[in-house]
Amino acid sequence: MCNACVMDHVQQQMMSRRGLVAGAITGAAAIGMAAAQPGLARSTGGVVDLTHTFTPDFPTFDGTPGLQMRQTVRFDESGYQMFHVSYDEHSGTHIDAPLHFTADGTSVDELPAESLICPLCIVDISAKARDDANATLEIEDIETWISTHGPIPAGACVTMHSGWAARLGDASFRNDAAGNLAFPGFSKAAAAFLIELGVVAIGVDTLSLDPGNSQDFGAHYTWLPSGRYGIEALANLDRLPPAGATIFVGAPRFQGGTGGPARVMAVL
Amino acid sequence: MCNACVMDHVQQQMMSRRGLVAGAITGAAAIGMAAAQPGLARSTGGVVDLTHTFTPDFPTFDGTPGLQMRQTVRFDESGYQMFHVSYDEHSGTHIDAPLHFTADGTSVDELPAESLICPLCIVDISAKARDDANATLEIEDIETWISTHGPIPAGACVTMHSGWAARLGDASFRNDAAGNLAFPGFSKAAAAFLIELGVVAIGVDTLSLDPGNSQDFGAHYTWLPSGRYGIEALANLDRLPPAGATIFVGAPRFQGGTGGPARVMAVL
Repeated sequence: MCNACVMDHVQQQMMSRRGLVAGAITGAAAIGMAAAQPGLARSTGGVVDLTHTFTPDFPTFDGTPGLQMRQTVRFDESGYQMFHVSYDEHSGTHIDAPLHFTADGTSVDELPAESLICPLCIVDISAKARDDANATLEIEDIETWISTHGPIPAGACVTMHSGWAARLGDASFRNDAAGNLAFPGFSKAAAAFLIELGVVAIGVDTLSLDPGNSQDFGAHYTWLPSGRYGIEALANLDRLPPAGATIFVGAPRFQGGTGGPARVMAVL
Repeated sequence: MCNACVMDHVQQQMMSRRGLVAGAITGAAAIGMAAAQPGLARSTGGVVDLTHTFTPDFPTFDGTPGLQMRQTVRFDESGYQMFHVSYDEHSGTHIDAPLHFTADGTSVDELPAESLICPLCIVDISAKARDDANATLEIEDIETWISTHGPIPAGACVTMHSGWAARLGDASFRNDAAGNLAFPGFSKAAAAFLIELGVVAIGVDTLSLDPGNSQDFGAHYTWLPSGRYGIEALANLDRLPPAGATIFVGAPRFQGGTGGPARVMAVL
């Protein structure tokens, strides 16, 4: 297929990068790099779709339906067909642009294309999320990732893999047994740490950058006003290695938007 | 930036591919390959955004407004903000899925991610489009491209560069002086030829795969029922070489859609 060469070379790229940085790190990080190689070796190559199919019943943060579609031209009448589509910006697998949590920050159409193609680092917190639906990705989780996989590249996208995507279709994707919002997210401190590291985007496999029980939206208010964007409701992060993939974020370009449904893919 | 290594390696990939196929072609094609190398060498590397900003007044094929946005949450009242967005699927820089011109073909959410990352071949017909607003990209134009740049890779996306994107904002982007639809497009024969070559997608910098004066939508009815998709209203094709870039097509994933606005980017 068309992407075979891309995959080969992106993989070579990531392995070269590891080689380049290997001389600059020592100890646990170097061991971690060695440990990461089998992950790349296991990779079959390919494109992984990180986008859920967007349906009218896709869960939303505020609980209202996110998508409506109305057929405007019928094939049996006109020989072609089309729909009018409407949605709340923050539904489906979607972008949070800085404008979502600022008065006048960068809108979704203003996100530069260069910021939408990034090395992808996946931090797995699924073990603690099994015990606590509102588990948070903390600075310590990032430090553990770095000690295993090496430095986070400048310009990376760092995503939280909590295992929540597998719950889609079940009430526990959004709520606990009492009906309260309940899902993992980034802590405010982790968001601030990733800004220090030069990360350009964070992503989650849940409905919000913040955990469901957040009262202050600390991750949103730390991350988005810094001029960086987020990605919510990612799919298939379990199909990627923690390091070595490149993410392509198809953010929509409607003018002045605060975010919106996006096609997100990764190349191994 | 994060994409520097990707660019380097995609460029290496394309140069390697040229090297691999060089032994299999002769004569004009081989001369063409040599001519194409400076194009790669001139490349500064980078990501090129092929997506127009989608505004309420963006021209549409049928002339009705394509986009509406309504603010549902205000920052000064709530500390965050968001919009409800609605549009006709076939507006802005957008995808035509097979379902657009079939009763039950592949919908936009069913396009496999593997088909959305492709080698990009750009066929420039801007010279004849200056003389004829309804100029068509013909088999001969594709043959000329091949004789200059070498074989079209299987799984490629082939786009028409007619120069029309530069007319956006002027009435001539959509109409001639008499008010008739007038813009370049693919001929039916060219669409059929590209199916034979194993191309997965075609794209245009105009409002339709067919020229504005088409009476039979021959390109649409040839291309889309074959299970392939199209991209309309591309931007910035003049910023890319005819060969050597990789296109990333962020097709939307709303279920059962016949197409829709997409973020499209290319990596040099």
